[in-house]
Amino acid sequence: MTDLSSTSPTTAQASAEGPQVSDFRLANGLEVVVIPDHRTPVVTHMVWYRNGSADDPLGKSGIAHFLEHLMFKGTERHPQGEFSHVVAELGGQENAFTSMDYTSYYQRVAREHLETVMAFEADRMQGLVLTDDVVGPERDVVIEERRMRTDTDPAAQLGETVAKTLFTHHPYGTPIIGWMHEIEGLGREDALSYYRRFYTPENAILVVAGDVTADEVRAIAERTYGTLPARGAQPERVRPQEPELRASRLVTLADPKVEQPSLQKAWMVPSYTTAEPGEAEALEVLVQLLSAHSTGRLHRRLVVEKRVAVAAGGWYQSTALDRSRLMLYAVPRPGVTLDALDRDLVAVVADIVRDGVEDRELARAKTRLIADTVYAQDSQASLARIYGSTLATGGSVDSVARWPQDIEAVTAEQVRQAAARWLDARRAVTGYLLKDEAA
Amino acid sequence: MTDLSSTSPTTAQASAEGPQVSDFRLANGLEVVVIPDHRTPVVTHMVWYRNGSADDPLGKSGIAHFLEHLMFKGTERHPQGEFSHVVAELGGQENAFTSMDYTSYYQRVAREHLETVMAFEADRMQGLVLTDDVVGPERDVVIEERRMRTDTDPAAQLGETVAKTLFTHHPYGTPIIGWMHEIEGLGREDALSYYRRFYTPENAILVVAGDVTADEVRAIAERTYGTLPARGAQPERVRPQEPELRASRLVTLADPKVEQPSLQKAWMVPSYTTAEPGEAEALEVLVQLLSAHSTGRLHRRLVVEKRVAVAAGGWYQSTALDRSRLMLYAVPRPGVTLDALDRDLVAVVADIVRDGVEDRELARAKTRLIADTVYAQDSQASLARIYGSTLATGGSVDSVARWPQDIEAVTAEQVRQAAARWLDARRAVTGYLLKDEAA
Repeated sequence: MTDLSSTSPTTAQASAEGPQVSDFRLANGLEVVVIPDHRTPVVTHMVWYRNGSADDPLGKSGIAHFLEHLMFKGTERHPQGEFSHVVAELGGQENAFTSMDYTSYYQRVAREHLETVMAFEADRMQGLVLTDDVVGPERDVVIEERRMRTDTDPAAQLGETVAKTLFTHHPYGTPIIGWMHEIEGLGREDALSYYRRFYTPENAILVVAGDVTADEVRAIAERTYGTLPARGAQPERVRPQEPELRASRLVTLADPKVEQPSLQKAWMVPSYTTAEPGEAEALEVLVQLLSAHSTGRLHRRLVVEKRVAVAAGGWYQSTALDRSRLMLYAVPRPGVTLDALDRDLVAVVADIVRDGVEDRELARAKTRLIADTVYAQDSQASLARIYGSTLATGGSVDSVARWPQDIEAVTAEQVRQAAARWLDARRAVTGYLLKDEAA
Repeated sequence: MTDLSSTSPTTAQASAEGPQVSDFRLANGLEVVVIPDHRTPVVTHMVWYRNGSADDPLGKSGIAHFLEHLMFKGTERHPQGEFSHVVAELGGQENAFTSMDYTSYYQRVAREHLETVMAFEADRMQGLVLTDDVVGPERDVVIEERRMRTDTDPAAQLGETVAKTLFTHHPYGTPIIGWMHEIEGLGREDALSYYRRFYTPENAILVVAGDVTADEVRAIAERTYGTLPARGAQPERVRPQEPELRASRLVTLADPKVEQPSLQKAWMVPSYTTAEPGEAEALEVLVQLLSAHSTGRLHRRLVVEKRVAVAAGGWYQSTALDRSRLMLYAVPRPGVTLDALDRDLVAVVADIVRDGVEDRELARAKTRLIADTVYAQDSQASLARIYGSTLATGGSVDSVARWPQDIEAVTAEQVRQAAARWLDARRAVTGYLLKDEAA
């Protein structure tokens, strides 16, 4: 049920030639977004809550993700398993995921079953029932999930340490799944008080993509979600911001289990939500230009020309409520030290800062970026996800529509300036993953 | 008025042959500690609140320290300046300081004036009056204080970055004075709500050292602090703990203003409050043995024998509510790189882990440590401070009394084990301060 999605990037933007999207609110504050997609008689129904792991209360890391698990434990009206069973019986699919900024629940069903899933989802926005009998065992599931994914994987451990070193004050430094010692302390009351705080109509965004009209969705939404009482206000998100950055940081993790050394370099950079106009778009183009498979500068320089790496790339977490990160990585060829590889990687960025980028590679990066997003909209779920993640991080339907033009408008000089301003050593945390030969 | 004391270590322990100390509570929960010291007819009066910068609410860093400033702004009964003026008129001294775990207010006066200062201090435990007229300008004072001490000093900036890299989740990573962008946002309501939460009889410890008896202090305390109503409970301290440490971290700060490069190495280690029995004492002896001036191993190896450093030393913040830190540092001789010096420093620790310590140096370290603390008690203020800081971090009068025996009991093997267990590379953050030659 769980996709810890913020460990990989999401580009929450779509094409200008996209669908005519409706965006309105019910009387209780619920925001509704309808994306017509009449290619097949199916609908994708998602509810997005504007809270993710970065909203976990102090000392309760992991609660957003834990609650996502617990949301499948049944309500006053529907016992545990009934919702999932009905979706399966209807031939549908379901999923849920927790990111740093939002939590989302998803079903895909034939269009005639939309009201059924909307009624179930509206029901569990307020009727969740939790007993110690279900909370304890589910916590063990999460503990085991963490153990499997992170605590036995040196690369995941390095990733966590790089993140917490990059974000020491802002909660993006805390893993979505939570720190083990805090997960172990999460209980029923923690889950319920978090649920009551954040699972409200005002805090949710309903996204329906598919073979429906806005009027149809509005009518069903009124009958289902519309019956939930408003809480009066959107819950507050407490997000302390990082202090000014002044020192480069290197994290070294050596473990006997490491078979392949690697290096990563993460910079704190603006997101679409925090950036000055054009800045996030320039970073998006920059990272594309650096990291595109086989044509990106990192691959060309480090893998093909200098032959110091066997792989190199990067990503940019552009869709985020607060300042976010851009990450480049490289995997050394045998015999190349990480220090040497790091110098070569830094030189690739320094070249752009000094000499700028070529028109041809700029054009190619933009085309690729826009095309990738347009292709993604082929999937109804991706389409819904682009709108949901954008809206849940402070963007608008309009910003999704405008995005391709905004990317087209990025100039070579903006890309150079974005590299110069943001990919500065003082903003960076470098991570080295090494085999511990001694152990 | 401000001593950001936790930037330097405090050893809050005293001699077994010390005074007969009384420790009792008033009906409203105020803890009272009386330390008879009849050498001169003076008294030291301190109030310790069990809250420091590590209890600052999320996003409000600096509030503990800011409130310490604001506590001099007058009360309903006594306008701003009157308390300080009276202390000065009486020929007394006053001070206040904020640490990570506690905040303390201090006056030293002739014994006959004890009740006067107690009445004033009790009055400002509840009667503080704050207006925007005083809050705004005082915030500017703090902003300027931060600018002068930290924001123009690369060594201080490195220290802050090392601390926040060592403590990414626990609030010991946040500087006592706060992050600039959060200080700028502190207002009257923040200060008052913090004041109401923490400045209560249940949360305070009154420490009186001097030419008085416990009965005298009790009687005056009843007449002054005793009139304050109890709040019902001690305020909660929310202290998220660090996750397990798995990677060594290096912070490099290069600045054109740096005239003298240096390196520091900080490890997260237990404090007296969190340690297993004997462990903190062993760390205390270890750091003494490593860092004692002219006789410590660091000085002998790095300065005298290898001639790679012009200075070397260290300290251990042993008196702390939570896991704390032990720091070693070295200043290179011209021409020696920080990488080379770091290897030599690590080798000094590794020698102890491998070969243990000599009986003679162990004995010398213990003698020196105990003597330093006994000498410190010569100062009445130090004496009061030892008790106050110990009690404010969860220790007892008894633990102060027992401390010299506990130090005497430390064995060579315990010192070796403490080094092996705690001074591990994965628990360390190394800081390099370098001249930025390029700028």
